[in-house]
Amino acid sequence: MVGIAVLGAGRIGKIHAANVAANPSARLIAVADPYASAAQSLAGSLGADAMTDCEAAIDRNDVDAIIIGTPTDTHIQLMMRAVRQGKAVLCEKPIDLDILKSQAAVDEIEGLKGRVMLAFNRRFDTTFAAMKLAIDAGAIGDVRQVIITSRDPGLAPEEYIRHSGGIFRDMTIHDLDLGRWLLGEEPVELIAMGSRLVDAAMLSKYDDYDTAMVQMKTASGTQCHVNNCRHAVYGYDQRVEVFGSKGMLAQDNQRASSLRISNHEFTDAHGPLLNFFLERYQQAYKSELDAFIDALVKEKAMPVTPRDGLRALQLAEGAVESVRSGRAVPV
Amino acid sequence: MVGIAVLGAGRIGKIHAANVAANPSARLIAVADPYASAAQSLAGSLGADAMTDCEAAIDRNDVDAIIIGTPTDTHIQLMMRAVRQGKAVLCEKPIDLDILKSQAAVDEIEGLKGRVMLAFNRRFDTTFAAMKLAIDAGAIGDVRQVIITSRDPGLAPEEYIRHSGGIFRDMTIHDLDLGRWLLGEEPVELIAMGSRLVDAAMLSKYDDYDTAMVQMKTASGTQCHVNNCRHAVYGYDQRVEVFGSKGMLAQDNQRASSLRISNHEFTDAHGPLLNFFLERYQQAYKSELDAFIDALVKEKAMPVTPRDGLRALQLAEGAVESVRSGRAVPV
Amino acid sequence: MVGIAVLGAGRIGKIHAANVAANPSARLIAVADPYASAAQSLAGSLGADAMTDCEAAIDRNDVDAIIIGTPTDTHIQLMMRAVRQGKAVLCEKPIDLDILKSQAAVDEIEGLKGRVMLAFNRRFDTTFAAMKLAIDAGAIGDVRQVIITSRDPGLAPEEYIRHSGGIFRDMTIHDLDLGRWLLGEEPVELIAMGSRLVDAAMLSKYDDYDTAMVQMKTASGTQCHVNNCRHAVYGYDQRVEVFGSKGMLAQDNQRASSLRISNHEFTDAHGPLLNFFLERYQQAYKSELDAFIDALVKEKAMPVTPRDGLRALQLAEGAVESVRSGRAVPV
Amino acid sequence: MVGIAVLGAGRIGKIHAANVAANPSARLIAVADPYASAAQSLAGSLGADAMTDCEAAIDRNDVDAIIIGTPTDTHIQLMMRAVRQGKAVLCEKPIDLDILKSQAAVDEIEGLKGRVMLAFNRRFDTTFAAMKLAIDAGAIGDVRQVIITSRDPGLAPEEYIRHSGGIFRDMTIHDLDLGRWLLGEEPVELIAMGSRLVDAAMLSKYDDYDTAMVQMKTASGTQCHVNNCRHAVYGYDQRVEVFGSKGMLAQDNQRASSLRISNHEFTDAHGPLLNFFLERYQQAYKSELDAFIDALVKEKAMPVTPRDGLRALQLAEGAVESVRSGRAVPV
Repeated sequence: MVGIAVLGAGRIGKIHAANVAANPSARLIAVADPYASAAQSLAGSLGADAMTDCEAAIDRNDVDAIIIGTPTDTHIQLMMRAVRQGKAVLCEKPIDLDILKSQAAVDEIEGLKGRVMLAFNRRFDTTFAAMKLAIDAGAIGDVRQVIITSRDPGLAPEEYIRHSGGIFRDMTIHDLDLGRWLLGEEPVELIAMGSRLVDAAMLSKYDDYDTAMVQMKTASGTQCHVNNCRHAVYGYDQRVEVFGSKGMLAQDNQRASSLRISNHEFTDAHGPLLNFFLERYQQAYKSELDAFIDALVKEKAMPVTPRDGLRALQLAEGAVESVRSGRAVPV
Repeated sequence: MVGIAVLGAGRIGKIHAANVAANPSARLIAVADPYASAAQSLAGSLGADAMTDCEAAIDRNDVDAIIIGTPTDTHIQLMMRAVRQGKAVLCEKPIDLDILKSQAAVDEIEGLKGRVMLAFNRRFDTTFAAMKLAIDAGAIGDVRQVIITSRDPGLAPEEYIRHSGGIFRDMTIHDLDLGRWLLGEEPVELIAMGSRLVDAAMLSKYDDYDTAMVQMKTASGTQCHVNNCRHAVYGYDQRVEVFGSKGMLAQDNQRASSLRISNHEFTDAHGPLLNFFLERYQQAYKSELDAFIDALVKEKAMPVTPRDGLRALQLAEGAVESVRSGRAVPV
Repeated sequence: MVGIAVLGAGRIGKIHAANVAANPSARLIAVADPYASAAQSLAGSLGADAMTDCEAAIDRNDVDAIIIGTPTDTHIQLMMRAVRQGKAVLCEKPIDLDILKSQAAVDEIEGLKGRVMLAFNRRFDTTFAAMKLAIDAGAIGDVRQVIITSRDPGLAPEEYIRHSGGIFRDMTIHDLDLGRWLLGEEPVELIAMGSRLVDAAMLSKYDDYDTAMVQMKTASGTQCHVNNCRHAVYGYDQRVEVFGSKGMLAQDNQRASSLRISNHEFTDAHGPLLNFFLERYQQAYKSELDAFIDALVKEKAMPVTPRDGLRALQLAEGAVESVRSGRAVPV
Repeated sequence: MVGIAVLGAGRIGKIHAANVAANPSARLIAVADPYASAAQSLAGSLGADAMTDCEAAIDRNDVDAIIIGTPTDTHIQLMMRAVRQGKAVLCEKPIDLDILKSQAAVDEIEGLKGRVMLAFNRRFDTTFAAMKLAIDAGAIGDVRQVIITSRDPGLAPEEYIRHSGGIFRDMTIHDLDLGRWLLGEEPVELIAMGSRLVDAAMLSKYDDYDTAMVQMKTASGTQCHVNNCRHAVYGYDQRVEVFGSKGMLAQDNQRASSLRISNHEFTDAHGPLLNFFLERYQQAYKSELDAFIDALVKEKAMPVTPRDGLRALQLAEGAVESVRSGRAVPV
C-alpha cells in the first residue's frame, strides 16, 4: 500500500486525490494546501488528513509518494524536498517556467536516481495510447507526419494568462510532448507563429498570443504540426492524426452522447464536445495515476520522466524564440 | 448502333433520352409523346425526331429498342407491340397495377423470348451494386437480415397518389425488389403494416397509407425489413444495411457536398441530402441504360427481367393483402 | 442513508453492489446468495455482510431496499416478501416468465402501493435518455417510426438458452420496452418473425429462435421495428433511430476508442465495438441504481414501474404468439 | 457560341476538350498538338479539327478562346500570342517556373486588359466552393486558421519530378492558392519545411522534397498550414478545414461509394478514396470550364486571374527560399 499526500487542493488536486482514493494499491494519507478550508474540504470527503503545510506533508513517515498540484513556482522546491528523502513524486507540468532552474532540478533528480514522473496526462488517454501502440506495432509503417489540433473552449481569465508563462509554455507544451512521443524520435528543429485574434488588447500586455502554429522536424526528416487557439466556440477540440509510410491513424473528438439529429436545416448534426480538459481527459488522469502507482509497486521505470518534462519545456522555449526571431530554431 | 425510341417525354423520359444520347453504342431515333410540345422540346434538344404516336415510333424500321416511360396503364400494350415485332424494351415499373394482366404479359414475353428489361434502377446504383458484389463475394458470409429505409422528401400531390396504385405498389415495390435481390433468395412470407401519419384525410380517400413497414422471410429463414414514409423533412432518405454471418455492410445517404460545420449549437452538422430520386439515382439511371444497351449489343441476358418485375408486384400485392387481413401472407 | 441488500452475487449482482457502494446516499448492508463463496467474495470486497439466505437478508431491520439479481423463477417470491414488509425493490427483468403470475404480482404490488422499480437499464443510458428528452422536447415533432437494432456478439451457452424463456422474453423484451418508451404511446398490435440461422439444431430443441424481427403499431398508427440476432461477428450492436414529423434522431455504436486507420486496403476503419452489455451499459447500470436511490430518498415515483415490466412481458408474449399463428396480435 | 481551341492533347487537354464539347455555349473548333496522332484521336472523337501547329490554331478566325494544356515552358508564348490578338485564354498553372518571366507576362496581360483565367481547378470543386460561400456568408465568423492536407497516392515518375519545378511549385502551389483564397486576405509571411522520406535518393538528385509543411500568416494574423506528401498508401488525400471565431468548417475525402463493412477485425471500414486528381476533381474541371465560358459569354470578370497565378507562384518561391534559409520569408 503506497501512502500518498496530495499537495494542492485546487482543480487538479481534487482529481488526483479522488483517483488515489479509488486505486486499490494506494492510500490517500493527507491533502495539504495553505488554504485550510480547501484542504479540509477535500481531505474530509476522502477520509484523509488535512494539512496546511506542504513540506510537513512530504516529511510524514506514512507518506511514500507525493503528488504536486500546487502553483508552478513551488514545483521544484517541493519536488526536490521529496526526492532528497527518497520519496516518489508525480508532478504537474511544467517543472518550472525557467528552463535553467528546470535543467538543474532534472540533473539533480537523475543524479539521485529520484523516482519522479511528469504529469503529461494525454499520453494516458485511451485513444492516444492506442495510437502509440498501433504505431509501435508497425500498423502505419514509418511515421512521416503528425498533425495535432488543440483548441480551448474559451480564453482563460487575465489572471491566469498573466502567470501562465505564455501560450507555448502553458498550452502548446502538451502538444509538443504528444508530438515528440508519437514521432518516436527527437525533434531537432522548430518553427512557430503566434497571433492575437481572440483578445489582442489583453494578450499584448503580456507579450503573449492566443492563436499559434508550430512545426517541428526530426533528424530523419519526420515532421509535426501543431495548431492552437485559446477559444473555439464549438468546444474543446482535441484531435491527432499520424501519417506513415503504410497508412494513417486518426481519432475524433469525444462527446457525452453519440446522438445526432437531422431536420429541415441540416443532417446528422452531433451534440457538443466534452467541455474541457477535466471532462475530456478524466479517464487519462485516472490511468496516469494508476500508471504512477503501478510503477512504484512493481518498481518499474517511470512512464514519463523529468527529462521528458524538460524536453517539452525546451521545445516550448524554442517556439517562443522562433516567433521572436522569425527563424527555424535548433532544439 | 442500337436505334432507340423513347416513349413518354416526361420526367423519366427526359432522363432516359439524355442517357441514350450519351451512350456511344446507341442512337436516339425518336421521342414520342401525345403531348406534341413535350415531344418536340425533348427530341429537338437531342437531335431526334419528335412523334405524337407511340405505336408508330415502335413500328419504325430504324428503331431497334424502345424505352417506355409512359403512364402505367399503357405499359403492357406498348411493350407487347414491341416484343411481338422482336424489338427490345426497357420498361419502367410496374408492368401494370393489375397482377393478372401483368402475369399474362410476362408469360407471353417469356414464350416469345422477348428481350425486355424492367427498370429497377436502384440495382444499378454504385453503392448498392458494390453491396451486392461484396455479398456475392462472401464478404459477410451468409445473409441473415436486410434492413431498408426509404423515405420521400415530401408527399406527392393528390393527383399522383390517386393513380399510384397505393404506397406498396408505387413506393415500397422498389425496396421489395432491392430486398429480394440482396437476400439472394426468394421471399416466401410477408407481413406489412400501414399508417396514415402525414395526411390521413387525403390518403383515406384512396384507402392508401403514407407510412409503412414490411417484413419478409425466405424459405431458409433470412429476413428483410422495409420502412417507408412519404414525407421526411430532412430529405430523401435511402439507406440499406445487410447483416450476415461474417459481418455487416452498410451505406450512408448521399449529399452534394461533404461540408460539415461546428458551432456553438452543434458539431459536425452536414448539409442536406441529395433532394430526390432524380438526383440521388442520376448515376443509377445512366448505368441502367448502359447495362440495357450493353446487353443488347453483346446479346447477353437482360440484367432485370419481366419476371423480376412481376415478382416485385406480387410482393407489393402481398403487402396490401397483409395490411388488410392482419396476417402473414405466403408470397 | 438507504440500507441495501443485494440478492444474487452473480454477474448482475456484482454490478449493482459496486454501484450501491459508490452511491453516497446508500449503504450496502448485505449480499445474499445461496452460493456462500460468491456472497462472501462480493460482500468482502465491498465491506458488507455475506449471507446465504436471501429471505433473511430482506427481513433485516437495517435493510430498507433490496436489489434482486437472482434467477428469474425466484423474483416474485423475493419481491413480494419485501413489498409486504414495506421495503423498496429494484428487480431485474422479467418479473416472471409466466404472465399470469406476473400480472397477479403487479396487481398486488399496486394494491399495496409497493415501491418497486423494474430494471430496464437501457432507459438510463446517456444516449437513449438524451434521445427521449429530445423527443419529449419536440425536437423531431410527432414520432412516426422507431427502428431498433440489437444484436448480441455471440450465442449464449445452451444452458442459458434452455432457461431463458426464449429470445422474445429474454432479449427482445429490452427492445420492446425501449420501443414502447420512445414511441410515447402504447402499442396495440404486434407482428413477429423468428428464424434459426445461427444454430438451428440447438434452438430447435427449445422451440426457440436466434434471429428475429418484430413490428408494433400504436392506436394512432406510429410504428416500431425491432431486429435481433444472437450472434453478430463484429460485436454488440445496439442502435436506435427515431423518425418524426420534424426530423430524425439517431445514435451510433460505442467503442473503447475513436481511433481509425486508413491503409492500402480500406479507409477510416474503426476498432471493435464495446464488447457486450456489461461494458456497453456500464454507465446505464450506474445511472439506473442512482435513479432508484434518488426516487427513494426524495420519495419520487419510481422511474420504471412493475406495470412497465408486465407490459414488456405482454409484448414479448405477443411476439411468441404472432410467430406461432402468423397473425398480427392485439397486445 | 464561343469557338475554342484546345492546345495540348494530353491528360489535361482531354478533360478540357470533353468539357468544352459538353458546354452548350461553346464549340470545340480544334485540338492542336505537335503529336499529330494525339491531336487526331482527341479531335476526331469530338468532331473538331486536328492540328499540329498550336500557333496556327490560335490564329484561326473561328477561334475565340484557347485552352492551354501544353508543357509549362510553352505557356507564356502561347498565352501572349492569344492575348495580343484579343483572344481569351484558360491557362493551366503555373504561368512559368521562372517568376520574373511570369511577372512580365502578367504585367503585359493586365496592360492589354487581356481576358486570361488561371486554371486553379480546386476553387471550382463543389465542396471547396461551398466552404468559401459559407465563409463569405459569415457562417464561421472571422477566419483564424486554415488547415490543408494534400497527399498524392504515389510518387510521380522521375521524368516528371525532373521537370516539375519541385514539390512547392508543382504540388504545394495548389494548396497555397486554396489557402490564400480561403483566408480571404493576402499572406505576408511564410515558413516551410521539406523532407525526403519517400525516395531520398531520387529526390536528392533534383534538390527536391517529397514531404513538406508550410505555414503562412496574413497581416491581421490569420494563419494557414499546409501539409503535403507525394505518397499516401491509402490514396489521394484532400482535406481542408477552416476555423473561425464562430465555428469551424471541414470536409471529408471522397469515395466512389459510401459502402462500409464491419467484421471480426474492424468496424465501419470504408472503401478506397477516389484515386487521383482526375477522378477527385472531375466535377471541378467541368465547373471551371463552365465558369470560363460563362465569364466570356456574360462579359464578367475572370474568376481566377493571372495575378492569382503569379501570387501562388510567389508563395511557392517563398517556400523554396524558406526551406533554404531556415527563415520566415516575407511574401
